[in-house]
Amino acid sequence: MPTRLIIDTDTAGDDCFSLLLGLRHPAAQLEAVTICNGNVAFDQQVENALHTIEVAGRGGEVPVYLGSARPLMGRWEAASFHGSNGMSEMVFPPARQRPESSHAIDAIIDLVMANPGEISIIAQAPLTNIALAYLKEPRIAGALKHLWIMGGTDNAVGNVTPAAEFNFFVDPEAAKIVFGAGFAITLSTWTLTLTSGSIDAEAVGRIEALGTPLSQFFMDVTETPRKVAFARYGETISTHPDSLTCAMAIDESLILESADVVVDVEVGGETTRGWSSVHPPRLVERWEDRDANARIVRRADTAAFTDMLISVLK
Amino acid sequence: MPTRLIIDTDTAGDDCFSLLLGLRHPAAQLEAVTICNGNVAFDQQVENALHTIEVAGRGGEVPVYLGSARPLMGRWEAASFHGSNGMSEMVFPPARQRPESSHAIDAIIDLVMANPGEISIIAQAPLTNIALAYLKEPRIAGALKHLWIMGGTDNAVGNVTPAAEFNFFVDPEAAKIVFGAGFAITLSTWTLTLTSGSIDAEAVGRIEALGTPLSQFFMDVTETPRKVAFARYGETISTHPDSLTCAMAIDESLILESADVVVDVEVGGETTRGWSSVHPPRLVERWEDRDANARIVRRADTAAFTDMLISVLK
Amino acid sequence: MPTRLIIDTDTAGDDCFSLLLGLRHPAAQLEAVTICNGNVAFDQQVENALHTIEVAGRGGEVPVYLGSARPLMGRWEAASFHGSNGMSEMVFPPARQRPESSHAIDAIIDLVMANPGEISIIAQAPLTNIALAYLKEPRIAGALKHLWIMGGTDNAVGNVTPAAEFNFFVDPEAAKIVFGAGFAITLSTWTLTLTSGSIDAEAVGRIEALGTPLSQFFMDVTETPRKVAFARYGETISTHPDSLTCAMAIDESLILESADVVVDVEVGGETTRGWSSVHPPRLVERWEDRDANARIVRRADTAAFTDMLISVLK
Amino acid sequence: MPTRLIIDTDTAGDDCFSLLLGLRHPAAQLEAVTICNGNVAFDQQVENALHTIEVAGRGGEVPVYLGSARPLMGRWEAASFHGSNGMSEMVFPPARQRPESSHAIDAIIDLVMANPGEISIIAQAPLTNIALAYLKEPRIAGALKHLWIMGGTDNAVGNVTPAAEFNFFVDPEAAKIVFGAGFAITLSTWTLTLTSGSIDAEAVGRIEALGTPLSQFFMDVTETPRKVAFARYGETISTHPDSLTCAMAIDESLILESADVVVDVEVGGETTRGWSSVHPPRLVERWEDRDANARIVRRADTAAFTDMLISVLK
Repeated sequence: MPTRLIIDTDTAGDDCFSLLLGLRHPAAQLEAVTICNGNVAFDQQVENALHTIEVAGRGGEVPVYLGSARPLMGRWEAASFHGSNGMSEMVFPPARQRPESSHAIDAIIDLVMANPGEISIIAQAPLTNIALAYLKEPRIAGALKHLWIMGGTDNAVGNVTPAAEFNFFVDPEAAKIVFGAGFAITLSTWTLTLTSGSIDAEAVGRIEALGTPLSQFFMDVTETPRKVAFARYGETISTHPDSLTCAMAIDESLILESADVVVDVEVGGETTRGWSSVHPPRLVERWEDRDANARIVRRADTAAFTDMLISVLK
Repeated sequence: MPTRLIIDTDTAGDDCFSLLLGLRHPAAQLEAVTICNGNVAFDQQVENALHTIEVAGRGGEVPVYLGSARPLMGRWEAASFHGSNGMSEMVFPPARQRPESSHAIDAIIDLVMANPGEISIIAQAPLTNIALAYLKEPRIAGALKHLWIMGGTDNAVGNVTPAAEFNFFVDPEAAKIVFGAGFAITLSTWTLTLTSGSIDAEAVGRIEALGTPLSQFFMDVTETPRKVAFARYGETISTHPDSLTCAMAIDESLILESADVVVDVEVGGETTRGWSSVHPPRLVERWEDRDANARIVRRADTAAFTDMLISVLK
Repeated sequence: MPTRLIIDTDTAGDDCFSLLLGLRHPAAQLEAVTICNGNVAFDQQVENALHTIEVAGRGGEVPVYLGSARPLMGRWEAASFHGSNGMSEMVFPPARQRPESSHAIDAIIDLVMANPGEISIIAQAPLTNIALAYLKEPRIAGALKHLWIMGGTDNAVGNVTPAAEFNFFVDPEAAKIVFGAGFAITLSTWTLTLTSGSIDAEAVGRIEALGTPLSQFFMDVTETPRKVAFARYGETISTHPDSLTCAMAIDESLILESADVVVDVEVGGETTRGWSSVHPPRLVERWEDRDANARIVRRADTAAFTDMLISVLK
Repeated sequence: MPTRLIIDTDTAGDDCFSLLLGLRHPAAQLEAVTICNGNVAFDQQVENALHTIEVAGRGGEVPVYLGSARPLMGRWEAASFHGSNGMSEMVFPPARQRPESSHAIDAIIDLVMANPGEISIIAQAPLTNIALAYLKEPRIAGALKHLWIMGGTDNAVGNVTPAAEFNFFVDPEAAKIVFGAGFAITLSTWTLTLTSGSIDAEAVGRIEALGTPLSQFFMDVTETPRKVAFARYGETISTHPDSLTCAMAIDESLILESADVVVDVEVGGETTRGWSSVHPPRLVERWEDRDANARIVRRADTAAFTDMLISVLK
């Protein structure tokens, strides 16, 4: 039985490949896409998602819902890592499919509450939509099968500030709300992306060699970040935080190492806004014991992930 | 020529062995001991330092100065890790030597300014005294040869809160002031203590086998923390944050791996007070470039350190 | 033409009399009641509102919608000022009317968007519901006729902490969101309540003398706070933050003095969580000029307010 | 017997007239001047103080000590309200008297500890020096006769930010330390300056008409702020926070209304850094009772203050 999924996305760059996994992998059944503020302009993200669905040959089959165009406290940080349109400046016509009129948080609530224990969410954007859905209907925390979150770091340097990863930095209040809500959570951090979710020149070469429209789509969308990575590190690296998260949700055997931990998110601080606190439930010395509220992935099967990614680009 | 040292200490447990290195290692010349708030009651710490000097056979030869009995903002956290007197409840008579009447921060300023480029400080307590000395005489930042700081974590879980190590947690304002002052700093973190500054049962056995008064002193002082470690981990581990720091100051060849980094300390935050930000000067993405303000030690020679420790216990 | 109103309420004590004004004053047309976390247990607040509608003789005529049972960040403070049930321990049977099944934030959005420029909201609870409605549908900020907020202080000591009034203290994030949203706002503070919204023993005597079921309802509901006030100040004072706010919305001539000001709400700080910053748009010295985002009431007509309150208790 | 005084000053504008009161009023005996970071460049402040002593005809008779050139946490805000040199751009030659070589905090400690119960301090700058002196020698809190602090607001809008007055904003950590130290404190706020410490065109005219070198000094030093006030308010107003504070210390009968209150200072917050919490020891509702730690002045005798100021300009 395929994994029934909602993907909550600030569609740009790797968000697309996560969508492709949900749209094309035989073990996945993508039932809704919800758009959240984050990477680039909100309307652009909507178009990116609709275009990806069309490119996947699924146009009109998976509804797209609009969520919150701003984080809870209204401080937005647009990233330029993926190019100004989040698609490496690739030009494409508007998709035929248009977004639904009902709100993303209602779509999430309705789908989850109508199918208790059945639906999983891939949260690969700031957690604004998930937090708002929970605040409107707290019972989704118990009714959702699983919440897969891409965000935060695993006691490591962030990618936006020394303390914080992008998704948690953009909406730390939402992240704090979600980790306190009682969801069954698996956390896929930026730290994991660097160790297990980055593919090298050889893998990119294999994708290019496929010669399919989707492999071309991959090469187009990843062009800017691949160039940036090459300029910075002297080698081609393509990083896949979102699609790795979705891949693990579809096939948990990709998780090679994980731990049950306590996760919290800092909302204040002079330098620590968006910092993710990750520690064992029983911490040495004087800190109060707390129950684990998430499973953190510490190592994933990069080779199997790469194969899975390639399989849906064929 | 021996390394001329001031040791700033909240004397309890391993602080003593750092003092012993300064007092007895041939390459060290300990010129002053300054007492800072931290581990246990201030007056107890003074007695612990005086007793250690006496045990080392150096009674009356190295002056002890009293510093600040409280952190800058007045929130003090007494640790119980070393027993209530910081010496595993070992009972000992007051030393003959008494502390000096002048203040620790004047002792530091006078010694450093009178010997520019000559004196190094081992700061193995909260950084209150160092910050106050700097605030009174900012020129010590340039006149000090080197500042060796034991404190903080290297992007890892703390030992007081998930975010913070003890010394930085007790006085984060002082730590932030010191890292912004322009000292030449080497940082020896709690993370390093766990990987390179912990000695095992075999090494403890070697120390016990020495059968000297100082090896007995070692066994006495470390009794409580060794028992705690055994109960917690099922093996005898003796952790040496302070004496490892002092050992590296005396013999830099103990440093096997290090990096120039930017260090800052968080003073606010709901959960991050005392968190140490440690990152490369050029951070990926959007964070401003900053100059490195410290060398962080990432691996030290545990075997050589153990030998050095044993050499002064003979 | 009567003022079309939604009252958002954590129904307890004076909340009831604000409802009575909306339910019974000829110049008011109360179209919905929405319940927000705040004073006492959420379910109790729902019963208090339903009972008040019944007591007013309007049972079944005005729908009651359930909003958020917790503030955004989940830290709730239950007050005991009004007795544990918020009604001075008065016992009453469940009302016949039951709450609606749709969510308060949808009720607000639907009513406001369907009647642009027509509806005003009396926000007499923490601002959670208003913030969530705005986050789901930002256009309500422009479509609402007016937002009357009871909360905050006017540069004065708070009633929960030295810095903060109850409604803003319970959900400062929501308050900050609402003041940044662009609503047309009138702010009725706790400071105003003390100067213009407190009625004395003589006025309470006039109410008691009415001898009507509603005057009895008034005496019952206010019993505990009147006793507390008597014990504290040696005189009978009945404070009416919510009903004064509603009264001004129904009849703006009650506003004797007001000013256009910049209002912001502090969400962090060691001692200032929930503090309301209130200042003129052009502040002396170096602070940036900002546009006014609220009208603050600085003096109201207590006599006229008292008469208005009495008129609906007849 | 005259009041024995130390004045701690960031000498610029009204600081000078406070010095004149200390230097020339028969009931005052100014024993030391200590310079603190604050209004303008540190070295300029030193020259301003030395020049004022010379103008007062007391050159060489009152020692000037250099304190901390920066606030504790190192964030300095230079004001331009008094002109770039703090003296309305008045040009004057260096005074013959030079500052002492010992540090301001040692001067404070030595004078206070040698004369327990005898010395009062006028603290009319950020509280850095007072905090550092206390941290080095906590016993001064009990040995000082009285600490007169100019700073903060009395639940009113600040003059640097909506929340904060200049002296507390520049060094809130120092202010928090001082209010927690146990000094006998009288607080003279910016709010009091506006109501009781501002003199009008008629009073300025009386000063100008004196035709003395010191009245000319007054007209010169106050020229820029008087012009700013005229441009802003359309009338000549000369504000005297520091000299009013000193005047009350010399003659307490100037205090017409005061209250014993709890004062605390906020060091964090997004908008509240430097905010002064001022409230009665027994606060309504749920806040913990605390002992009063300061007397706040709420009304002073402006006419008597003006006469006193004029008396020393003759």
